[in-house]
Amino acid sequence: MVDIKQLFEGNYIDSNIEVQGWIRNHRKQAHFGFIDLFDGTYFKTLQIVYDDTNSNFEDISKLKIGSAITVKGKLVKSLNPKQDFELNLEEFILEGNCDDDYPLQAKGRPTREFLREIAYLRPRTNLFQAVFRIRSLAAYAIHEYFNKNNYVYVHTPLITANDGEGAGQVFQVTTLDLDKIAKNKVDAIDYSKDFFGKKVGLAVTGQLEGETYALAYKRIYTFGPTFRAENSNTKTHASEFWMIEPEMAFCDLEGDMDIMEEMLKYVVKYVLDNAKVELEFLNSFVEKGLIEKLERLVNSNFVRIDHKDVIKILKEANVNWEFPPEYGEDIAKEHEKYITEYFNGPVFIKNWPKDIKAFYMKQNSDGETVAAVDLEVPGAGELMGGSQREESYEKLYNRMKELNISTDEMDWYLNLRRFGGCKHSGFGMGFERLLIYLTGVDNIRDVIPYPRTPGNCDF
Amino acid sequence: MVDIKQLFEGNYIDSNIEVQGWIRNHRKQAHFGFIDLFDGTYFKTLQIVYDDTNSNFEDISKLKIGSAITVKGKLVKSLNPKQDFELNLEEFILEGNCDDDYPLQAKGRPTREFLREIAYLRPRTNLFQAVFRIRSLAAYAIHEYFNKNNYVYVHTPLITANDGEGAGQVFQVTTLDLDKIAKNKVDAIDYSKDFFGKKVGLAVTGQLEGETYALAYKRIYTFGPTFRAENSNTKTHASEFWMIEPEMAFCDLEGDMDIMEEMLKYVVKYVLDNAKVELEFLNSFVEKGLIEKLERLVNSNFVRIDHKDVIKILKEANVNWEFPPEYGEDIAKEHEKYITEYFNGPVFIKNWPKDIKAFYMKQNSDGETVAAVDLEVPGAGELMGGSQREESYEKLYNRMKELNISTDEMDWYLNLRRFGGCKHSGFGMGFERLLIYLTGVDNIRDVIPYPRTPGNCDF
Repeated sequence: MVDIKQLFEGNYIDSNIEVQGWIRNHRKQAHFGFIDLFDGTYFKTLQIVYDDTNSNFEDISKLKIGSAITVKGKLVKSLNPKQDFELNLEEFILEGNCDDDYPLQAKGRPTREFLREIAYLRPRTNLFQAVFRIRSLAAYAIHEYFNKNNYVYVHTPLITANDGEGAGQVFQVTTLDLDKIAKNKVDAIDYSKDFFGKKVGLAVTGQLEGETYALAYKRIYTFGPTFRAENSNTKTHASEFWMIEPEMAFCDLEGDMDIMEEMLKYVVKYVLDNAKVELEFLNSFVEKGLIEKLERLVNSNFVRIDHKDVIKILKEANVNWEFPPEYGEDIAKEHEKYITEYFNGPVFIKNWPKDIKAFYMKQNSDGETVAAVDLEVPGAGELMGGSQREESYEKLYNRMKELNISTDEMDWYLNLRRFGGCKHSGFGMGFERLLIYLTGVDNIRDVIPYPRTPGNCDF
Repeated sequence: MVDIKQLFEGNYIDSNIEVQGWIRNHRKQAHFGFIDLFDGTYFKTLQIVYDDTNSNFEDISKLKIGSAITVKGKLVKSLNPKQDFELNLEEFILEGNCDDDYPLQAKGRPTREFLREIAYLRPRTNLFQAVFRIRSLAAYAIHEYFNKNNYVYVHTPLITANDGEGAGQVFQVTTLDLDKIAKNKVDAIDYSKDFFGKKVGLAVTGQLEGETYALAYKRIYTFGPTFRAENSNTKTHASEFWMIEPEMAFCDLEGDMDIMEEMLKYVVKYVLDNAKVELEFLNSFVEKGLIEKLERLVNSNFVRIDHKDVIKILKEANVNWEFPPEYGEDIAKEHEKYITEYFNGPVFIKNWPKDIKAFYMKQNSDGETVAAVDLEVPGAGELMGGSQREESYEKLYNRMKELNISTDEMDWYLNLRRFGGCKHSGFGMGFERLLIYLTGVDNIRDVIPYPRTPGNCDF
């Protein structure tokens, strides 16, 4: 038994082989026919040829699209210049038949919206074979990069009593019987009866716990699911998504940016090297210029510029902004686009106004900004965000008080600053945001196997 | 700047170096002193030597355990036969001081129970440095094994409306305001107002979704968190843990066992090769014979035996069982132990009575058993469980009806059998169970960074 991948990567011509897979297409004529077989190990299909000299001709001709088969035969050079080889069918076994209502027939091109409704079948299509293979390869590249650089992979908790950075709305997790609660009019819920004895929810970040491990291992990363209960129905929001959150002790903002740049290039390079056929497909049918875009990123030098200097450039630009840029304020999508075009490459925007950034970011000596950074990438906007973390107990404590963040519940996080708390930095990257960039597929629902969005929790 | 790991793996003797880390121990005399520095990149500490010829002698002497420092000096051969080298301190910078109430002082050995209460500091101890480094390495080995063998890594959903295999109690996930519900006496909760428009919970398995991807990619695996809301306070139960669930199309139970055995050996071998120092520590202080146990596993052949033949052996054994073994019934911990000792190695117990196994397992032709397998390992008990999946629509449908599992909500899972559903198999491995085996640490709370158990959700 061989994988179709082996056929494309080895030399099996004139060998007798046996393969197993599913029929993507079947074109039959009176005296011969062609079957396109995929087995999921490789993006391309294997062409199988048969004719009426085969004693099973009748049965073969009846094979339906979607069916699973085992095929034996000889691999021969193809007369078709579009492919190197094809399989002359000798024997076959029908492993699993396919009913006529199979939605992935060869005719017609189903919409992505329709394919979301049959998310359990869509990885059998060309588009999603490519997308989810790339998802897997990119995940591996991330683990490989961090492992090579001696990071410790940390699984931070998903169920948590703290609401992280206040970065988003939280799903509540409970074992209380809601129907019982509904029937008994009471003043307030008694959380001592809940599973954890208190109110808990799903984590919006693993950063804070990640910091505790960075101050023990020097370099750590997380790679796990995170959750947001925001009621937003956009192409870039999902309620459940995966994040990568590295954290490095003895590392300042400059060091942080070095790692962000190196890691991103490593992952993009890995996908370019290991998903050639998939990227060629996406380059032809989803985003023209995709491969060139990725290659340029790998070979570019990322610009590093202060937020205030970006505002200056935007103000001086001869553009009629929908949102006029302003010192001390956030920047809009149109600004992100302009600035990456201005520098013709990726741009780190750093030292942001402290009032629009999170409480844990290191306060700069100007009293106005924090050592935060966003990476803006051509054609993708913000791809990662990071910061040096405030290591001064006093500054952090005061900032938390200012923002009404509980210093009691977060005493462990504060204590990190009292117990050998050194300079440290980290960043976060939304994995699906990276995938949108890598594949050119522009809807987050199409880069997550089973996406969860408001009102949608199928399969 | 170098990592302490580099010092142990390269040759830096007689070089001037600069390192950063935390003080684990500090022994000071009148005219000289020793500092043990760890930086988390390597298990062993670097010994730093200083004396009163140094102009900063006073300040150095005052450095507290737990503090973060930068140190410059010359690496020299050590006179102490226990170590190859030490650092002659020339300059230092105090990066982060440590308050006197730091709980990890050199004196006394804190209990594991106490260390759980300061879970944010425990990775700085020898024991947990070893455990969580091994956790990271084992995770990487798993990804590497599957990537090498061309599996697709699939992120199955965590929030789900189906309760999986009925394998455990489910945490509910909601955005409804429980306090409001409590105050308004109503007949039942209106889930159309909940975030997803229906009642949802946290996944207990990713297998069912995994199967849908196996039937598109031939070989897939999941590696992600799973949740159980069971109120059990044992050493082996946690409410949140990580699972690995591979799934292979065109693979029967024998093939499944081949992969289980190969993967487990790969991971154990990887940890033996890459965590030598950590394992030596655990071998000395946690489980005598740990390394030998792991090496034996890698070199053993796993026995494969039917459940009924295991019962026969147990019945014939001259043992006064607490739970008498019986055909058609599950086996107890004492039986697991006996059978691995009987065969003096790992044992696959296969073809289990169908009534004690899950609905999706392939029904054997005897009408009594299913093609399920558990792997029993000496000193660990059940480490993995797997099965061939029922590929017949009719048999699966009837079994679900028998067990009152909703065939409507699970129509997509059933449909897999109508649309080229072929023979396929898979297995599950609890990651923490593997870690308990790999480290000798016997409590699941000590192999998870921030464990969640009934009543415990700190940090």
